[in-house]
Amino acid sequence: MIYLTKDDIKKVFSMREALDADKEALSWYSKGEANIPLRTNIDIPEYNGQSLYMPGYVGGENPALGMKIVSVYPDNIKHDLPSVPATMVVLDPKTGIVKAILDGTYLTQLRTGAFQGLATELLSNEDAKTALLIGTGGQGMAQLEAMLTVRNLEKVYVFDIDKSRAKDFCDQARNNFKNKFNTIFESVDNVNDVSEMVDIITTVTTSRKATFDGSKIKKGVHINGVGAYTPEMCEIPSSALINADEIYFDTMDGVLAEAGDIIQPMNKNLLKNDNINGELGQLINGNISGRKSEDDITIFKTVGTAALDVIVADRIVKRALVENSVVEI
Amino acid sequence: MIYLTKDDIKKVFSMREALDADKEALSWYSKGEANIPLRTNIDIPEYNGQSLYMPGYVGGENPALGMKIVSVYPDNIKHDLPSVPATMVVLDPKTGIVKAILDGTYLTQLRTGAFQGLATELLSNEDAKTALLIGTGGQGMAQLEAMLTVRNLEKVYVFDIDKSRAKDFCDQARNNFKNKFNTIFESVDNVNDVSEMVDIITTVTTSRKATFDGSKIKKGVHINGVGAYTPEMCEIPSSALINADEIYFDTMDGVLAEAGDIIQPMNKNLLKNDNINGELGQLINGNISGRKSEDDITIFKTVGTAALDVIVADRIVKRALVENSVVEI
Repeated sequence: MIYLTKDDIKKVFSMREALDADKEALSWYSKGEANIPLRTNIDIPEYNGQSLYMPGYVGGENPALGMKIVSVYPDNIKHDLPSVPATMVVLDPKTGIVKAILDGTYLTQLRTGAFQGLATELLSNEDAKTALLIGTGGQGMAQLEAMLTVRNLEKVYVFDIDKSRAKDFCDQARNNFKNKFNTIFESVDNVNDVSEMVDIITTVTTSRKATFDGSKIKKGVHINGVGAYTPEMCEIPSSALINADEIYFDTMDGVLAEAGDIIQPMNKNLLKNDNINGELGQLINGNISGRKSEDDITIFKTVGTAALDVIVADRIVKRALVENSVVEI
Repeated sequence: MIYLTKDDIKKVFSMREALDADKEALSWYSKGEANIPLRTNIDIPEYNGQSLYMPGYVGGENPALGMKIVSVYPDNIKHDLPSVPATMVVLDPKTGIVKAILDGTYLTQLRTGAFQGLATELLSNEDAKTALLIGTGGQGMAQLEAMLTVRNLEKVYVFDIDKSRAKDFCDQARNNFKNKFNTIFESVDNVNDVSEMVDIITTVTTSRKATFDGSKIKKGVHINGVGAYTPEMCEIPSSALINADEIYFDTMDGVLAEAGDIIQPMNKNLLKNDNINGELGQLINGNISGRKSEDDITIFKTVGTAALDVIVADRIVKRALVENSVVEI
């Protein structure tokens, strides 16, 4: 059995590889090859905590089996510990034997970033030059890296309700990517100063109201809604959804059950099932079409699926074993 | 995080400690302090496999959180791999952070052995001198060790339908316990030659019919039914159940749902709910009484509960950290 920390994973697995693994996962998911049972939640009221268990199996040519454990302990912050610690367990689907344990927090950042990158690669205009990232929390950096990986961006604007955090994030991005991308990173105080002029908008917050003005977006923009994952959260403006030409989800079941962005306008009859093109996996499989013109407004909404964790983790472990860069325990 | 193999566990945790941990687990379980969600099963038909996920939380004074993963892959045998590989994940219930990974196969043997030992300690006559072990599969050695730990046994008879396996098992037992117990181990060809003269009978098989003649048991005997865990399996003879003075289960819910030993005679009206004294945890908690005279026939039936895995694994990890005998990974 092997154990892979964030650094171990970074050494052997690039964002590009994560994008390809996500693509595989979505494709098999939409073909009905994924078996993702309901999550098991255990409440630990004594410590104001909750522990979530998400096993899954993805079949197909190169099957993968595993389980992510995510705990939610808000009080951990007081003790300088992560409030949402996560661990991934990878099994060999051919033998049922546990073969690796991975840092689940970095895995989540990587696979979620890659997921958005994949949607951006498939849906945004190829000559996109500018982007806006809204939200600089734990997922922010991987979201940025994914956009940079799939499009030659000249400039990325960064907004956060905490302005100094947005500035710090830009400093960190300059440092992280200085040898990799020539992009300029600029923090902005008012999101609507730039939302109407960028080619790509990625919003990754837990906001309960729209994070930008949907009536002020330019033709041809591609929007990713990554953050909101409960029916109460709602970061994509309804007006953008109403004006969108194409709308895709990661999984129909997941988004329609969990994403306030979509559930709320549907409940108000502002958005209908007919307005939804389908799953990104169906687009990958060639079963539905994508952007039709460079003036189209396209939207991708994701809440995630354990299928991504399972496939990406499996591929990381296989790479690590090939690179032989890990210690057998 | 730490990783504990079978040898690591053996070094730091004795059968006596496992007995005490099981006692704690059962006590809290019967007090309603255990939260054991339904098991999640994932079928992997391509490889004739199944992967089972069993998380659980046990509250009380010294709470424990964890999850056992057990896979069932009959074809593994062909490749010299275990057909039921198991891994235990231990979390810190105060923070939700994964703190250890344990060999789940040895953990299962240890906690199941200890569970029977606990019942034997609480229910058999204190001056018991002889025992009979029926079944020498993967659980056999820990079952034997548990009986030896709680009673000063002069002789243990060992039976298996594979006679040479019973002999080999006795050789192995002599070797394992030569410096620890003065007991004589003797394999027998016919189980009923000895079943009528021993003080303790422990049957640990997956048999679909009684493994000994229940009409030929002596007064005062204590019987443990450890093996049968489906409604089709049935190793304790109905006649023994009918003649028993006291009958205890590990968990009422588990045994009444899964154990053919009990379900089958109940369906035939040979055994009634009134004949069942209750859970071993209730006995530990002083809520029900135990053996009333040295002539009583007592029976304990167990199918196991994740509460045992969670508590025993937690206590092993705590011991390992105290002993500082483990490598942080």
